[in-house]
Amino acid sequence: MTDEWADSRLDLPRPLPARGRGEALRTELRAAIRSGRLPAGRRLPPSRILAADLGVARNTVADAYGRLAAEGWLETLVGSGTRVAAGRSADAAARTAAEQPTPRLDLRPGHPDLSSFPRAAWSRAQAAALADTPATALGYDDPRGGLELRTTLAGYLARARGVDADPHRIVLTTGFGDGVASVWQLLVREGARRLGVEELSLPPFRRSAEAAGLELVPVPIDEQGADAAGVRADALLVTPAHQFPTGVVLSAERRRALGERIAAGTLVVEDDYDGEFRFDRSPVGALQGLLPDGVVYTGTVSKTLAPGARLGWLVVPERMALPLAELRSETGGAPSVIEQRTLARLIDSGAYDHHVRRMRTLYRRRRDELGMRLDAEGIRSRGIAAGLHVVVELPNGQGEEAVIARAADAGLALDGLAGYAMPGAARRPPSLVVGYGAPTPHLWPAALEALAAVLAHGRPAASRTG
Amino acid sequence: MTDEWADSRLDLPRPLPARGRGEALRTELRAAIRSGRLPAGRRLPPSRILAADLGVARNTVADAYGRLAAEGWLETLVGSGTRVAAGRSADAAARTAAEQPTPRLDLRPGHPDLSSFPRAAWSRAQAAALADTPATALGYDDPRGGLELRTTLAGYLARARGVDADPHRIVLTTGFGDGVASVWQLLVREGARRLGVEELSLPPFRRSAEAAGLELVPVPIDEQGADAAGVRADALLVTPAHQFPTGVVLSAERRRALGERIAAGTLVVEDDYDGEFRFDRSPVGALQGLLPDGVVYTGTVSKTLAPGARLGWLVVPERMALPLAELRSETGGAPSVIEQRTLARLIDSGAYDHHVRRMRTLYRRRRDELGMRLDAEGIRSRGIAAGLHVVVELPNGQGEEAVIARAADAGLALDGLAGYAMPGAARRPPSLVVGYGAPTPHLWPAALEALAAVLAHGRPAASRTG
Repeated sequence: MTDEWADSRLDLPRPLPARGRGEALRTELRAAIRSGRLPAGRRLPPSRILAADLGVARNTVADAYGRLAAEGWLETLVGSGTRVAAGRSADAAARTAAEQPTPRLDLRPGHPDLSSFPRAAWSRAQAAALADTPATALGYDDPRGGLELRTTLAGYLARARGVDADPHRIVLTTGFGDGVASVWQLLVREGARRLGVEELSLPPFRRSAEAAGLELVPVPIDEQGADAAGVRADALLVTPAHQFPTGVVLSAERRRALGERIAAGTLVVEDDYDGEFRFDRSPVGALQGLLPDGVVYTGTVSKTLAPGARLGWLVVPERMALPLAELRSETGGAPSVIEQRTLARLIDSGAYDHHVRRMRTLYRRRRDELGMRLDAEGIRSRGIAAGLHVVVELPNGQGEEAVIARAADAGLALDGLAGYAMPGAARRPPSLVVGYGAPTPHLWPAALEALAAVLAHGRPAASRTG
Repeated sequence: MTDEWADSRLDLPRPLPARGRGEALRTELRAAIRSGRLPAGRRLPPSRILAADLGVARNTVADAYGRLAAEGWLETLVGSGTRVAAGRSADAAARTAAEQPTPRLDLRPGHPDLSSFPRAAWSRAQAAALADTPATALGYDDPRGGLELRTTLAGYLARARGVDADPHRIVLTTGFGDGVASVWQLLVREGARRLGVEELSLPPFRRSAEAAGLELVPVPIDEQGADAAGVRADALLVTPAHQFPTGVVLSAERRRALGERIAAGTLVVEDDYDGEFRFDRSPVGALQGLLPDGVVYTGTVSKTLAPGARLGWLVVPERMALPLAELRSETGGAPSVIEQRTLARLIDSGAYDHHVRRMRTLYRRRRDELGMRLDAEGIRSRGIAAGLHVVVELPNGQGEEAVIARAADAGLALDGLAGYAMPGAARRPPSLVVGYGAPTPHLWPAALEALAAVLAHGRPAASRTG
């Protein structure tokens, strides 16, 4: 019987990634079916066999089979296991099939409202940028990116974020991950060994720092933001304007303390991921503006325009500008010249500021609506009036995983706080990190209601009607 | 007197990069003047002082001062040294000043004719791509890049280069350097230690491999191409279709030997940098097409369209697809979604193939003209009828550096073979690597004449008139 299974023929990459194995497995199975490597009618190995083979939990495989059957890729026949369904193999129609099904409603953090991308303004800027890009600019560029966008950004960042920028210290990137990966490499080449990272932070960039050879040291977070006082590290990665994910702002006292650390020789990498969005007052200027010789400032258009534009920047201390340019000339990563010049034109014309103002109004309204809806349910939320997310403490002793699973069943994608914690981080009450950026304006009210319904679930019936 | 010098105030990054120090120094001095850090009238340190301070040769500094004086940034006064010239500091007009002066004529290899970039077709494709990109595609993308361009490339690469591609094994990059930097990181994570590199090859990518932790082992090159037989390495980086820079093609025998190496477990990274351009016959298909499980195939649009488009790809063995996607999700590097979809549309519409055919005709004609011109001078050139460059052995015992310097004086940029050699590479006769892609059609005849004049320089007067 064994040779009837498509066991070793599945030829799936192993090991699967440490996180998101179920999703990775589904993606690979779809690809194998689409390409014809798994033809219609081919029987798949029993879930326990494939699970053992891939080194994953049996439930992961069983769940992947179940979902792909629901999507029509597989069919499960009583008594004869799971087979590839007819009509899906190597089919041109499958080219357009979504690789990963998107939940109908999405309140995960970190995503702007993509339906608001300023297509008309971008299209005009793009056409004009292409028309007046000289042929010579289309060659192998300065590894920092073209002078045009660097010059425009120097002005924009000074004005909008108080950054002390000079075009020759700006390095254009394809996003935050691209930029900091280069910074980690440079730090390691220069002898840095220990990187302090906020104990709640984004895991992928912790992994890239470790992969570059840095040892990670957790920096405690409290209501005043990051407390680096007791942290022995050569460099620190922090989010002073709006800590991600807790949403607190670095207090004046902690800012001073960080300044002293910098003066004593610690390099700070300032992730200013959503600095344009503060709703209650003028945003706190970038830390970099005070201490340009000790801070690497990073920003992107991922929250203001769209992550898919793949445009970001580093503003680095004078001494790092040339070594970083040299490193980038070896490893690439500069964004397209045409896209660079499109963004420069968008900023120079005022269209970028106009768009940011429009989005600030939209997000502030959503944040207010979310706050009022949660208040009405007696649920507490935390974080300053800024950015695209808020932390919501789960009521009634509910656990993060249970709430996220229940929401998923209702077509609502949610994210918990625990996934951001480094090993050894202080324990927090179970909480959601609720992003209000992602839904289209059309879906926003439904997302808000779905969230309220999910959170109300654990409440005793008496108070629910009260 | 010392305190009158802008010595420590020059605040130049140190150390300067290992290569191109003079150019780096000039760039930094211009930036310092433009930003006002070096105001008009500020006296610069004597060249021997600054040279000692920066750890560079005195000539490097003297030459930089001389050139900047010629460009009007500095002025040299007899008896009182070198000062910043009036009227250049922090001047808005300086924004548009070229950071690096471009020689009028350029015959360095690796550059396509940028004036032939298909602007009209690109503009149409770009507008259409933006119009039909769904909002959801503008979010955080698959770390391999969007499915649309990967699907299009799978078809194109199979058809044009015989590549065995499947969209889920394709990873989009911002160019060759970006892609291979990720491959080096993955190989090191998986335990690879030694990388075989052709003894004549591009230095930046050797440096990125070393920086990732790989030990480089030179692979001898002869008229049959790379000979990896005696090379102990976990992986090999090769240019089988058209060795760079020598221009030879990997012989059938060596191809077989490489296939056996792959079968025995050595990973080959195939750099197919100009595979579309073969003039005398159909190009040899990619090695990857024969052994897709043991070869990482790399390509870009840098030679077919323009380097500034920053679009490239890797086609990787099945087992590397997911680990590489995971790594790229940490380090970024995907090109802009709009640019991805622009290229997909350009290929799907046939405009890309049309452009490649047009450029193939143009480059073949240039190659023929170059060959005839050199023949007329009795100068020998080497390399198969392919790509954008040819190796020209220097006549009359001339040295590479002297010829390059003489050409620079005449406004012609040239490149020598020696700069590509790894330590320990076999000695070659002094040669130029002449690229015929870079000049605009308008400047091509002048570039050809300038080259002929430079090469004729060392010839005895008797034969020059003969």
